[in-house]
Amino acid sequence: MIVMKSSATEEQVDHVIDRIRSVGATAHPSRGEEVTVIGAIGDREHVARLGLEGAPGVDKVVPILKPYKLASTQLRGGERSVFDIGGAKIGGEHFALIAGPCTVESREQVLDTADVCLSAGASMFRGGAYKPRTSPYSFQGLGEAGLRLLGEAKDRTGLPIVTELMDVRDLEPVLEVADVIQVGARNMQNYTLLTELGRAGRPVLLKRGLSSTLEELLMAAEYVLKEGNEHVLLCERGIRTFETAYRFTLDLMAVPVLKEMTHLPVVVDPSHAAGRRDLVEPLSLAAAAVGADGIIVETHPDPEQAVCDGPQALVASEFAAYAAKVEQAAMLAGKLPLRESAPAVA
Amino acid sequence: MIVMKSSATEEQVDHVIDRIRSVGATAHPSRGEEVTVIGAIGDREHVARLGLEGAPGVDKVVPILKPYKLASTQLRGGERSVFDIGGAKIGGEHFALIAGPCTVESREQVLDTADVCLSAGASMFRGGAYKPRTSPYSFQGLGEAGLRLLGEAKDRTGLPIVTELMDVRDLEPVLEVADVIQVGARNMQNYTLLTELGRAGRPVLLKRGLSSTLEELLMAAEYVLKEGNEHVLLCERGIRTFETAYRFTLDLMAVPVLKEMTHLPVVVDPSHAAGRRDLVEPLSLAAAAVGADGIIVETHPDPEQAVCDGPQALVASEFAAYAAKVEQAAMLAGKLPLRESAPAVA
Amino acid sequence: MIVMKSSATEEQVDHVIDRIRSVGATAHPSRGEEVTVIGAIGDREHVARLGLEGAPGVDKVVPILKPYKLASTQLRGGERSVFDIGGAKIGGEHFALIAGPCTVESREQVLDTADVCLSAGASMFRGGAYKPRTSPYSFQGLGEAGLRLLGEAKDRTGLPIVTELMDVRDLEPVLEVADVIQVGARNMQNYTLLTELGRAGRPVLLKRGLSSTLEELLMAAEYVLKEGNEHVLLCERGIRTFETAYRFTLDLMAVPVLKEMTHLPVVVDPSHAAGRRDLVEPLSLAAAAVGADGIIVETHPDPEQAVCDGPQALVASEFAAYAAKVEQAAMLAGKLPLRESAPAVA
Amino acid sequence: MIVMKSSATEEQVDHVIDRIRSVGATAHPSRGEEVTVIGAIGDREHVARLGLEGAPGVDKVVPILKPYKLASTQLRGGERSVFDIGGAKIGGEHFALIAGPCTVESREQVLDTADVCLSAGASMFRGGAYKPRTSPYSFQGLGEAGLRLLGEAKDRTGLPIVTELMDVRDLEPVLEVADVIQVGARNMQNYTLLTELGRAGRPVLLKRGLSSTLEELLMAAEYVLKEGNEHVLLCERGIRTFETAYRFTLDLMAVPVLKEMTHLPVVVDPSHAAGRRDLVEPLSLAAAAVGADGIIVETHPDPEQAVCDGPQALVASEFAAYAAKVEQAAMLAGKLPLRESAPAVA
Repeated sequence: MIVMKSSATEEQVDHVIDRIRSVGATAHPSRGEEVTVIGAIGDREHVARLGLEGAPGVDKVVPILKPYKLASTQLRGGERSVFDIGGAKIGGEHFALIAGPCTVESREQVLDTADVCLSAGASMFRGGAYKPRTSPYSFQGLGEAGLRLLGEAKDRTGLPIVTELMDVRDLEPVLEVADVIQVGARNMQNYTLLTELGRAGRPVLLKRGLSSTLEELLMAAEYVLKEGNEHVLLCERGIRTFETAYRFTLDLMAVPVLKEMTHLPVVVDPSHAAGRRDLVEPLSLAAAAVGADGIIVETHPDPEQAVCDGPQALVASEFAAYAAKVEQAAMLAGKLPLRESAPAVA
Repeated sequence: MIVMKSSATEEQVDHVIDRIRSVGATAHPSRGEEVTVIGAIGDREHVARLGLEGAPGVDKVVPILKPYKLASTQLRGGERSVFDIGGAKIGGEHFALIAGPCTVESREQVLDTADVCLSAGASMFRGGAYKPRTSPYSFQGLGEAGLRLLGEAKDRTGLPIVTELMDVRDLEPVLEVADVIQVGARNMQNYTLLTELGRAGRPVLLKRGLSSTLEELLMAAEYVLKEGNEHVLLCERGIRTFETAYRFTLDLMAVPVLKEMTHLPVVVDPSHAAGRRDLVEPLSLAAAAVGADGIIVETHPDPEQAVCDGPQALVASEFAAYAAKVEQAAMLAGKLPLRESAPAVA
Repeated sequence: MIVMKSSATEEQVDHVIDRIRSVGATAHPSRGEEVTVIGAIGDREHVARLGLEGAPGVDKVVPILKPYKLASTQLRGGERSVFDIGGAKIGGEHFALIAGPCTVESREQVLDTADVCLSAGASMFRGGAYKPRTSPYSFQGLGEAGLRLLGEAKDRTGLPIVTELMDVRDLEPVLEVADVIQVGARNMQNYTLLTELGRAGRPVLLKRGLSSTLEELLMAAEYVLKEGNEHVLLCERGIRTFETAYRFTLDLMAVPVLKEMTHLPVVVDPSHAAGRRDLVEPLSLAAAAVGADGIIVETHPDPEQAVCDGPQALVASEFAAYAAKVEQAAMLAGKLPLRESAPAVA
Repeated sequence: MIVMKSSATEEQVDHVIDRIRSVGATAHPSRGEEVTVIGAIGDREHVARLGLEGAPGVDKVVPILKPYKLASTQLRGGERSVFDIGGAKIGGEHFALIAGPCTVESREQVLDTADVCLSAGASMFRGGAYKPRTSPYSFQGLGEAGLRLLGEAKDRTGLPIVTELMDVRDLEPVLEVADVIQVGARNMQNYTLLTELGRAGRPVLLKRGLSSTLEELLMAAEYVLKEGNEHVLLCERGIRTFETAYRFTLDLMAVPVLKEMTHLPVVVDPSHAAGRRDLVEPLSLAAAAVGADGIIVETHPDPEQAVCDGPQALVASEFAAYAAKVEQAAMLAGKLPLRESAPAVA
């Protein structure tokens, strides 16, 4: 839909019509008293390539069709996607509590935390072996040694593993242990990484960039989906705003709006948004109440000793009480009890 | 606390110290290996007036003391304020559901809606007689005639009235009917209005500006409190961010953070943030679950016919079911049932 | 223009068409393969009041006509407004340098600064008698005594006076001395104030709110213009963003874009955006080079002793050199030399 | 610097002091009347790892030392870095005009544009062979074939080549032709890519992320510098704000502020910020006037036919006139004429 300026000449209108036709689309002008609007019907990408925003006499170009296709709600006729990931279910009526330490530090820390998560009803276990850090002088993760510890936790608890990949060259070792591969907010538009994950076929947890619109998030998901990988979990983790009283602003309105735009499950990460333990529980309750399909949260046996992001980790000994409250909030929003979505444990 | 640049000279450090002393404060320099930091102890306003941010050799000025005093949690030793407003209680364990139409349109609309609110357990009734509109060509409210209709609704239901004041010259008629006077987001820093409301002594519902920090919101409350009016309700109603998928971004993290900063009750307005009816219920549940002391929401007997903001109004016939769910979410966050906070009805 | 969802039913489309017709507008549906788009031709305000954003089956509503009328470029057929304000010209080829202290403090300070401004080629003199302050504990201005000092500066130098009004009840004394009445950023949507200024007929300098879009700025101007006051100067003074390295982010792209949207002159305030003296000159050069019609800037004989905002004030003794550079940048953007726009001095 | 809450207990203060000491730093408490502030002197990373933001009784942690070291102005004692890149100079008094098409499309397009750039005084030639695109359905660049065409342009004109790298696996072919390797805004925090570029040793043009603070930009540069590559050019290209009247908000205040923070040269990209040709010239003049060390801009022989971003490309036939005006604005800000910074041509 091309809106002409009220000062546009007849030649300018005709030129726009000609250009629309030049890419095989049809042009439908409506001449109003004040302005002329031209509908362009045809391939969205072809019309976009015309770059009509800059053409003489053009006021603005309003895209009518959504640029995302495989992620759109229409694809499934309005039905929501439900994924079974190593026995854990997420989407639709299923709510997944994904928990674990920010960073894999030691065998004891990982296994103790995994036990706590399992007994509290968590359905997946998270932990970072490769850590994106703002400073090159910060700890960057245990790497493959960390992955091996996550593998042990999985063997012990049966919980599927969620872990982050930053470098496509580490894909192979990550695939050996990960049931879900996380893409961090800073890499949301790392198209190289997204395309490789699309090809790898393993479920992806895609975090929204700090200043990415919901449409951009879905376009990033589209990079994965386009390669044939249907399993993308979207994750709201806080956006950047003018407010300095907290690290990021958790955008919970994104949850119901995403659920209208896409059939993919939507998860919330309250830990990174807040950066402070005391905010994690209220934000988790709010995320569950607003309709999220899951929460990904950090917990640590002794947060003061955590190598990374200790201030935002829930204390493991308090985790079961937390999980019980989150479950109630999720049920208020129409979800099943946690045990209906967690993997069956032998 | 003044942080000097690492390139600051000894003269520059001494000059800053002299200026701090010139306003009767004491200066406590700590000379580190890389930078010198100077603590300034004394009257916050006096030191602020020095304008040291611009002084040669100064890297930054970090205020240590909070600029708000009467609004601060410390004032009450950590105890939360509970207000009784015409029999409706808000704050602490009390959750207030404030509901009504965006705009007062007609006798029938107002009285019908008030009945619905009362029977659903709302504790206050809201309605606008003076409307701040972005366009001078839009309907600006019924004015005094609208106030009279609100008065009728109060007589009929016993619900206290919340209504907006825009112009100090309308204070007198508004005082005749309003139990709570609302200050809109666009007027949050209208200091003339705030000061008059401080003097008027009637409870104030102060909406956060679209791009106001929490500290600025508390400073605006301070204008009211400073005049001796202790009854200020703070209201989060959505902030402006880069996201264009919704009108505003509802900042629910503000709720627990404000409750740490101030003893004043914190209310959430989900209607204006969303601008869309279907988002109002999930956002209301989230607001209650995150710990809000109340919700202010719009409802209308026939939203399609509403003069203003119909798309965001809940349908009155569905309001009771909505209120029951909100109550459950509030109780999950530790609040009492709605009836414990609503005015006793004869 | 109403864009329906791809899942919209035929009944939903018809219902939207009926509602458009119900307000006397005509509906022009285009049924594409994927979505239906309905053009609504008629009174913009009437169609807006329908609130179709919320209607079942509606994806989005895209306004085609601009909501501002009197401010729009079309009003003057693309010609730019040039105002003569007490002999100072602004707009078109005329560039106005508006300078003076943030706050009126004393007779000596005002008169000394006015002399400096006059001899450096400034065309108007600014100074605040009423100051909007974030904190109620800060100095709030000299009030009427300050206005009298500005009157003295005008008598002495012949420079027209720019000063801020916050409270409509102070309009009368302000009208006695002000040639241009400034509306601060926090009051940009104080419609009471704007309407009164529209009626007062004196030129208005309207500062953009911290998070106001350009369209909202023009709608605020429209409140003044609608009352018959044609003389509105728009002012970009920095917007609020996520960046914390400076007070505000000066949005210079607003200048050429506003000049395309409106015939009104556009002024830039580099002092408040930066909050730091050393940034004022580079930002002023940039503002002039990008095509601003004027700059409003703060200068003080002894900024260290300034009561308010000293860190951002240019030192008066360096002001003439600054003005000469700004003039060159403005001329690069097609403006006349400063003396062509300043009032003739006897 | 750790600021304790006014409600902090003596035990909480002592606990913070103990933790500071536990990492080998020294603690310097200042007990004020209202709050206690604790200075921590020692390794910044060690103290940061303590995560004291979350500790009981802590109000906030204010870092005093800058987290970037190699990028900081102090490193060179305030002297600005000047780079010689294939004969083109940038930094200090040297202003670089970097121009060329957004995307490499064809041999003729590339060579014609390169000729235009050379004769207008540009000092480097830009063109994309690998294009990061929001949509996976958009054209992704010619890849290695595009690199070969850039090589031809270099042979023909002697202009050094600036081109983007997205995937570390393409580093080798890019190194064969690129004199400067560009990192796009979306990859600013792709630490894998930054580290490899640090090792590759070729100059890097690092674009600021859409919502990255200046400190984060410098930390990203630090990833490159840390590997021993001293040649990083920083680039402001527009940030994301609430304003929807343009694609991005060009943050020109970043230029003088970055020049205070770092010795590295600072470049501005007006094309991507604006997305519209008519804004490119005013923004370029403003960027030069505000003190940028260079401009990177898009030009195309026939923008209507451009494969990508045509609406923002300057028309090649008008490029020489544009370059002459930009040169004047840069000289106003103290730069040498363009020819002093361009490579000597045989």
